[in-house]
Amino acid sequence: MRELEERIRRDGVVEDGDVLKVDGFLNHQMDVELFAAMGREWARLFAGEGVNKILTIEASGIGMACIAAQQFGVPVVFAKKSRTKNIAGDVYKVEVTSFTHGGVSDVIVSKRFLGPDDRLLLIDDFLANGAALEGLIDLAHQAGAAVVGAGIAVEKAFQPGGERIRARGVRVESLARVKSMAPGQIEFC
Amino acid sequence: MRELEERIRRDGVVEDGDVLKVDGFLNHQMDVELFAAMGREWARLFAGEGVNKILTIEASGIGMACIAAQQFGVPVVFAKKSRTKNIAGDVYKVEVTSFTHGGVSDVIVSKRFLGPDDRLLLIDDFLANGAALEGLIDLAHQAGAAVVGAGIAVEKAFQPGGERIRARGVRVESLARVKSMAPGQIEFC
Repeated sequence: MRELEERIRRDGVVEDGDVLKVDGFLNHQMDVELFAAMGREWARLFAGEGVNKILTIEASGIGMACIAAQQFGVPVVFAKKSRTKNIAGDVYKVEVTSFTHGGVSDVIVSKRFLGPDDRLLLIDDFLANGAALEGLIDLAHQAGAAVVGAGIAVEKAFQPGGERIRARGVRVESLARVKSMAPGQIEFC
Repeated sequence: MRELEERIRRDGVVEDGDVLKVDGFLNHQMDVELFAAMGREWARLFAGEGVNKILTIEASGIGMACIAAQQFGVPVVFAKKSRTKNIAGDVYKVEVTSFTHGGVSDVIVSKRFLGPDDRLLLIDDFLANGAALEGLIDLAHQAGAAVVGAGIAVEKAFQPGGERIRARGVRVESLARVKSMAPGQIEFC
C-alpha cells in the first residue's frame, strides 16, 4: 500500500538491531486517518471471506484493529498479555516470546469470545519473527475458529515469520513489506 | 448516554469486590459501533474546545480513543505501561497503581508526542479510584500540555476518583455513571 510505504519512508526511523521505529504514526502516536485507509485496504483484500470477528493482541494492534473492524462491521477481540501466572476464569492461553523485549508472556483470550463459528481476521502492526501472530493462530485453533487470514501493517520480509506462517497455509496480507533497511534507507518488496 | 447504560444493564456483570465486568463489549471483546456512538457523544460534549490530540492509556482505552479521534480529526497517543525499569529514550513518566491488579506500573509517554501546544482530551474505559486518569493528567502537566477534559466510558460514582479529579478543576464527562451496583442490579446516577 503506497500510502503506508511513503509514510514509513518519511517518518520511520531505522535503528541498530533491526529495529524500525514507526512510533510517530503507528504504535505510540497513532494516525487514525492512515488507519482508516489501511482498514479499507484490508476490507478490499478480504472481501467475501465471511470475516465475522477481528482478533488482535494488545497493545499496538488494538487501534488499527478497531478502525478496520468498522469497515467489516464486526467486533474486535484483543488477546491480553497476562502479568499474573494464575488466570481466573476460562481462557485459551499461549506463550509468546517478544521480539522487542525478549521476555515471555502468557497471552490469553476468554473462551466466551472465540468459538467454532468464528471466521477470524487477525490484525497486528508488525510481523517479524512471527511469534505474536503464531500465538494468535494457536489461540484460534484452540477455539476451533477458522483463520481467514492475517492483516499486517509492516512486515519485515527479511525475517522468517512471514514465510513460515504462509507455509502453514495462512493467507498474510502485509500492507508494507520491508525487503531491507539501514539507517536512512528503507527498501520495500 | 442511554445507549451505553442500556448495554451495561443488559450485558454487564457485577462481581464480588466492586468489579463490573463489561468485557463482552467494552474492554476485551469490543463493539466498535458502540464506540462510534460514544465518540460522537464526546465530540458533541467537547465541541469548540480546540482538542488537537487524544491521550489514553494501554490497553483497553486504545480502541475507543482511536474511534473517537476520527470524530475529532486528531491523532491518539497512548501511554505505555512499562515492564522494564530502565526506559530507553526521553519520556515523561508517572507511577500508577492498578485497581484491578493492585500492582504498580511505570506509565510513560515519549516527549516527542506531548508538548505545550497540545490541548488534550483524555479517554479511558473506567474511572473508579482515578489512579490511571490522574497519571494521564500528571503526564500532560509534565509536558506543559492543556487538559481540555476527560471522556470516560463508565464511572463508578460511588468510588472517589471522579469527585477528586473534578475538584482539581478537570472537566470529566462520563457516559455512564454507576451510582450503586450489586449482582443482578445496577443503578445509574
